Amino acid sequence: MAGNSIGEIFRITTFGESHGEAIGVVLDGCPAGLHIDLAFLQQELDRRKPGQSSITTSRKENEQFRIISGVFEQKSTGAPIAILIPNEDAKSSDYEQIKEIYRPSHADYTFDAKYGIRDYRGGGRSSARETAARVVAGAIAKLLLKHYHINVTAYVSEIGKIKCSTEYSLLNLADTEKSLVRCPDKTVSDAMIKSIEKAKKEGDSLGGIIKCIVSGMPAGLGEPVFDKLHADIGKAVLSINAVKGFEYGSGFAGTKMKGSEHNDTFTNQNGKVVTTTNYSGGIQGGISNGMDFYCNVAFKPTATIAHLQQSVDKKGNQVEVAVKGRHDPCVIPRAVPIVEAMIALTIADHLLRNKTTRL
Amino acid sequence: MAGNSIGEIFRITTFGESHGEAIGVVLDGCPAGLHIDLAFLQQELDRRKPGQSSITTSRKENEQFRIISGVFEQKSTGAPIAILIPNEDAKSSDYEQIKEIYRPSHADYTFDAKYGIRDYRGGGRSSARETAARVVAGAIAKLLLKHYHINVTAYVSEIGKIKCSTEYSLLNLADTEKSLVRCPDKTVSDAMIKSIEKAKKEGDSLGGIIKCIVSGMPAGLGEPVFDKLHADIGKAVLSINAVKGFEYGSGFAGTKMKGSEHNDTFTNQNGKVVTTTNYSGGIQGGISNGMDFYCNVAFKPTATIAHLQQSVDKKGNQVEVAVKGRHDPCVIPRAVPIVEAMIALTIADHLLRNKTTRL
Amino acid sequence: MAGNSIGEIFRITTFGESHGEAIGVVLDGCPAGLHIDLAFLQQELDRRKPGQSSITTSRKENEQFRIISGVFEQKSTGAPIAILIPNEDAKSSDYEQIKEIYRPSHADYTFDAKYGIRDYRGGGRSSARETAARVVAGAIAKLLLKHYHINVTAYVSEIGKIKCSTEYSLLNLADTEKSLVRCPDKTVSDAMIKSIEKAKKEGDSLGGIIKCIVSGMPAGLGEPVFDKLHADIGKAVLSINAVKGFEYGSGFAGTKMKGSEHNDTFTNQNGKVVTTTNYSGGIQGGISNGMDFYCNVAFKPTATIAHLQQSVDKKGNQVEVAVKGRHDPCVIPRAVPIVEAMIALTIADHLLRNKTTRL
Amino acid sequence: MAGNSIGEIFRITTFGESHGEAIGVVLDGCPAGLHIDLAFLQQELDRRKPGQSSITTSRKENEQFRIISGVFEQKSTGAPIAILIPNEDAKSSDYEQIKEIYRPSHADYTFDAKYGIRDYRGGGRSSARETAARVVAGAIAKLLLKHYHINVTAYVSEIGKIKCSTEYSLLNLADTEKSLVRCPDKTVSDAMIKSIEKAKKEGDSLGGIIKCIVSGMPAGLGEPVFDKLHADIGKAVLSINAVKGFEYGSGFAGTKMKGSEHNDTFTNQNGKVVTTTNYSGGIQGGISNGMDFYCNVAFKPTATIAHLQQSVDKKGNQVEVAVKGRHDPCVIPRAVPIVEAMIALTIADHLLRNKTTRL
Repeated sequence: MAGNSIGEIFRITTFGESHGEAIGVVLDGCPAGLHIDLAFLQQELDRRKPGQSSITTSRKENEQFRIISGVFEQKSTGAPIAILIPNEDAKSSDYEQIKEIYRPSHADYTFDAKYGIRDYRGGGRSSARETAARVVAGAIAKLLLKHYHINVTAYVSEIGKIKCSTEYSLLNLADTEKSLVRCPDKTVSDAMIKSIEKAKKEGDSLGGIIKCIVSGMPAGLGEPVFDKLHADIGKAVLSINAVKGFEYGSGFAGTKMKGSEHNDTFTNQNGKVVTTTNYSGGIQGGISNGMDFYCNVAFKPTATIAHLQQSVDKKGNQVEVAVKGRHDPCVIPRAVPIVEAMIALTIADHLLRNKTTRL
Repeated sequence: MAGNSIGEIFRITTFGESHGEAIGVVLDGCPAGLHIDLAFLQQELDRRKPGQSSITTSRKENEQFRIISGVFEQKSTGAPIAILIPNEDAKSSDYEQIKEIYRPSHADYTFDAKYGIRDYRGGGRSSARETAARVVAGAIAKLLLKHYHINVTAYVSEIGKIKCSTEYSLLNLADTEKSLVRCPDKTVSDAMIKSIEKAKKEGDSLGGIIKCIVSGMPAGLGEPVFDKLHADIGKAVLSINAVKGFEYGSGFAGTKMKGSEHNDTFTNQNGKVVTTTNYSGGIQGGISNGMDFYCNVAFKPTATIAHLQQSVDKKGNQVEVAVKGRHDPCVIPRAVPIVEAMIALTIADHLLRNKTTRL
Repeated sequence: MAGNSIGEIFRITTFGESHGEAIGVVLDGCPAGLHIDLAFLQQELDRRKPGQSSITTSRKENEQFRIISGVFEQKSTGAPIAILIPNEDAKSSDYEQIKEIYRPSHADYTFDAKYGIRDYRGGGRSSARETAARVVAGAIAKLLLKHYHINVTAYVSEIGKIKCSTEYSLLNLADTEKSLVRCPDKTVSDAMIKSIEKAKKEGDSLGGIIKCIVSGMPAGLGEPVFDKLHADIGKAVLSINAVKGFEYGSGFAGTKMKGSEHNDTFTNQNGKVVTTTNYSGGIQGGISNGMDFYCNVAFKPTATIAHLQQSVDKKGNQVEVAVKGRHDPCVIPRAVPIVEAMIALTIADHLLRNKTTRL
Repeated sequence: MAGNSIGEIFRITTFGESHGEAIGVVLDGCPAGLHIDLAFLQQELDRRKPGQSSITTSRKENEQFRIISGVFEQKSTGAPIAILIPNEDAKSSDYEQIKEIYRPSHADYTFDAKYGIRDYRGGGRSSARETAARVVAGAIAKLLLKHYHINVTAYVSEIGKIKCSTEYSLLNLADTEKSLVRCPDKTVSDAMIKSIEKAKKEGDSLGGIIKCIVSGMPAGLGEPVFDKLHADIGKAVLSINAVKGFEYGSGFAGTKMKGSEHNDTFTNQNGKVVTTTNYSGGIQGGISNGMDFYCNVAFKPTATIAHLQQSVDKKGNQVEVAVKGRHDPCVIPRAVPIVEAMIALTIADHLLRNKTTRL
């Protein structure tokens, strides 16, 4: 009931603070017999880690994970899978300065307001470091989905005002990982990199949008009326740090269409029911229809900037904040595997839930 | 685990199909001692019901509710509150025609794909009629929130391409109910009505956007890291029929701002910590900070239109669908109380959850 | 989270008070496609209803149920199944006398202490009338179990000091329903009836023990380490009014055996792994092994007696209580279908849960 | 939904196998601001650990725990508390012998039947080693209960056929820890020790009964109708390895009493409502009434014995099993802190749940 778990059957609980001994995750409900590919888990973690390139933070988090339980002879046993990712390179002293001060648009004030106590070191529990735990669990979800031929892929479609307008089906998504900013369109990618470098120089930060596509979806996933597939996916991605919005299928733009334009006509394609357009984003009535699911996730610009800012301290005094530390001018590229992880976890959960639907 | 419940402590379970005997809801976890104002419940239901005006469906649903349990001498007792809303005016025969046919962008196909059986009469469980149960439960949530001086208000900000661009704080939200389309700006409201009348004549439908504001919020609501307040609200509204997107605070537009523009500066206002801007939408790190919460909810154009459409039947044959029945060219105005209900339910739940946070 | 739901996938929520309009239940998670045999549901309800014979209360509860939703053309659709059982013959005036008084060993005091408000009419929510809702939902669980060839049967093995010592495998359980007290051993049954008649004359009440056997169990049900099959069954039966104890397999008597006597030897019976004894009660490590599950459930003597009793009222004054009303001197025979229902519900839930265990 | 979590608000998830790197627990929902007394946690763990005395196993488990998260400057922060207890002295080779063989009355066969894969080393997930994680989490629950002046104490009341018949209120429970078998009655304790020594010599094992008392209970805990306080406690203790039965208050013996004997008369004691007897065990209608809660928990004799036993292997062949390893002839004394832990966890959860009951 406390909020550190998500999923009903394929269910994760994360724990750990930015500057504690480790962060970690317990995954309960992974079906027994799944081959756990350790190299793949590491690879997914590496996609999220800081210090990947010149445009990310120079802070080094060496994401070495250890599986504590639930895997035997490289297979899931049905027991809970606990994974630890030790924290390294934690410079707590960087944070002494903000012990008594509320950084603008950070969670410092709200954590104090809620709990009356706060592990201020590096943002503590509210640090995005927690998302490493999501990524490693999401990698296991992806392994399960692969078994069912379901594929989850995301890329950066917007950074600040730079936008990749090409429809996803016309992009070569295999190129995403070749781009420093994880945008598969080379021209747009270059423009994005420049804008991030500019923001970095200015001590400022940028937001952006990540698009995620799920292909190979079976029909039938989603549990009306509240646990509709897109509602659970929406919650899962909205729980990621800095996310401000979620839309799927035609999304906000679809509100401007007429019903006669927006309706997706069914047709019979070699014995399979498909739609000729896909404004529905692969979901009707909260249940997948077998077409691609796709969605956009909006990230605000990172709150941590180098500028001197006005704020208050714990006692309510007006103060100026100058956050030192080492931070990303734009976290969106590193958020790509996090979005994929949260969506993979949600679909894995619904795959299992759907196994109990019919006699 | 099946998807017909939402909320952890203040928790509802809805049941019922469009053309069955009744729809209803069980609310478990309402604190004992709350005065249940029956007139208010009726008033909220009336805001949602069809046949309110010339621009909505002529279908009549007389929303007479009955409280079956959990209320004694007009107060909640702590026992589950069950409420029934009998179905009337159900013309099942209208639906015989679509028994074997999948209406485009409806849930007919996906329900069959998932369950292998479908109560086709009036959309059955996937009908928006189910939302009446949400509204009556949401009315009880509002009564609880009123006790804590929290107020949830929504209005229609866009219908199709007609948009109310005025910031919500400059509108007189008390005017919302005076407008047939629930837009408090008279000029925009008139334009919206015209566009709906046009769509009605064309046998077409329109989508739109609802904005919801929560004022009087205490600081401290929300349960990181997954049950962040906005994540749970997002799921709650995404579970409403026809919703395609959700954004809060600066939302998608915020992705185009720089951190230095977007950060909300804290200041001390007569001893209370407030922010000078509110791009955060009243939430930081998933926890409310005491400022207004506000969000936009995107609705697609209604799938039910008068046009002749191509589709397939259960056997996979290509067919033409002409849906008779009586339907709304635009459901957005009637969805205003539904959005309010889902958000009120979510905040009521988090209010109670937060009672256990500190020693 | 409030306590009126049980089960994870096959999940029921009950509602209603003794003297309100109706009691009822919502069953969410019943697999689609199950034939709902209405006559069987009625038959199960009739086994629980009062006024069955000279030894039960003369109070008449006509258990006419109505299915409100979730069943279409006599099959479950996957939507929540709501069932109402209207209350009749409710003489609230009988209870005016105890409005301000705490009856000994009833829930009057504790409900007031917890909720600060109490629907005192007929015990309100704490009345055993609520168990009718469990029985009708349990009947659906039994229909699901029959599909898997699992059979749940209970009988009365002890009333007060009268005991049926014959091992269950030597009894003809088909005779249970022929006995007024639901004990399949004719001689013991007669002695039990006499002891109940005596208690009735004395205005006193008796307790007893119900034994329940589940045959046809598949191996593999139960979810370690907390949701062990017997732990969930134990909770389910302990939640029945008046239950004071639960034991399964060798139970309390098994504590006096040595390991060498108690261990159940495995053997191969025509290719199936079975045990030669069954002290384990069909469960090892919390998971069913395919042998019979069996358990004992202890019921205290009914708290409602005709005797004049000492107590206190709401203001703390010493008072004398004389409860009129019409009550059972011994509820154990009527509790047999309730025990079966709670166990059937739990096993149905675990059957579905187990579907997600392996890749 | 997988079974490795228990509790609704104060909720634990355990993980880890007997011979893996570590076992551990995540406690989510501990209120912020609780002083975490590390010495007390260690002391509780030490009460459970093997090798405490001549009558327990010589196997050494050095229960050194590490808090990974959720505690800052010795206080709970409201974030999940993760605790690791590394495994030491793991002789996996001892278990190669039982890799393919199903030990009688162990969970070897059922784990294989359920999951199709089994970490056979030391019983893997079904090992009682998992209970160390419960004990350390239970110690935190006890710290919370102490804050509310609630005290949970258990002792061994029976070992095999040796019984302590003195009523608990006449015993000096402070003497429990002075006894090797945790029985506060010196004479009975000595007899128990002798019987265990005899069983050890014979290569056999003994069962027994643990009684647990909770004093200082507030009135109002428990959530009807399913999450009655005793039902949740019952489930919690039934989930402990080797438990076969649970009774509270008058329990099974109460079934032989008449209502007029069994009813607990209310009286006013200096302004507090109390009962003159306590057959109810401090609970009426599933809600605590402020009197002591007390219960008995039945443990079967340990399945691991030195005798040569008949069984089958994975292929269904008849085999003889001779389990070497180092095991306890009687685990009951070491189970005392486990019973206390599970009951403390359940009451802590209900304390928090009850905070949301009233307006």
